[in-house]
Amino acid sequence: MSLLSFLFPTKPKSAVAAKERLQIIIARERSNGRQGPDFLPALHKELIEVISKYTKVNADDIKISLDRQGNLEVLDVNVVLPDADSAPV
Amino acid sequence: MSLLSFLFPTKPKSAVAAKERLQIIIARERSNGRQGPDFLPALHKELIEVISKYTKVNADDIKISLDRQGNLEVLDVNVVLPDADSAPV
Repeated sequence: MSLLSFLFPTKPKSAVAAKERLQIIIARERSNGRQGPDFLPALHKELIEVISKYTKVNADDIKISLDRQGNLEVLDVNVVLPDADSAPV
Repeated sequence: MSLLSFLFPTKPKSAVAAKERLQIIIARERSNGRQGPDFLPALHKELIEVISKYTKVNADDIKISLDRQGNLEVLDVNVVLPDADSAPV
C-alpha cells in the first residue's frame, strides 16, 4: 500500500468526481516532548489564503481536521475545487 | 494501517530524532483528464514562505518530491526544523 492510497480516502459520488480536489496534509513531529509554539491552526488559515491565489476556493467546500497522536500532530485540509472555468484569471 | 503510519516514513538517526520535523503533502486530483493550471510547484514555494513565518526553516533542510499517478499529483515536502530556541521571535 502506498501513501497515494490514503489520499482522498472518501470515494466521491459521481457529481463530486467531476470536480477537482485538493488535499493538504501538514504533519508535525515534535521532538522529546518539547512543546514550542503551536502554529498549525494559524498555518492552516494562511494556507487557504495561499491556495485561493491559485484557484477559487469556497469556504464551505473546505473540510479540516486536526489529529494528535503522541508527539505527532496532523492537519488535514480537503478542498473540493469549483470547475476550472471559474478559476481566478 | 492509518495515514499517520505513512508520515515521516524514514526512521531518523538518533541525532535527527532530536529535531522537530514537518511534513507537507499537497495532493491534487484532477477531474476527467482536464488540465487546468499546474500550480503545485508555485504553491509549495509559498507554503515554505508561510511556514518560515512560524518557524525557522533552512533551505537545505527541505526535501521535496513530486509524484504523478494517473490524474493524481502529490507534492511531498519534508522539513527538518532547527532546534526550537533558534525559532524566530
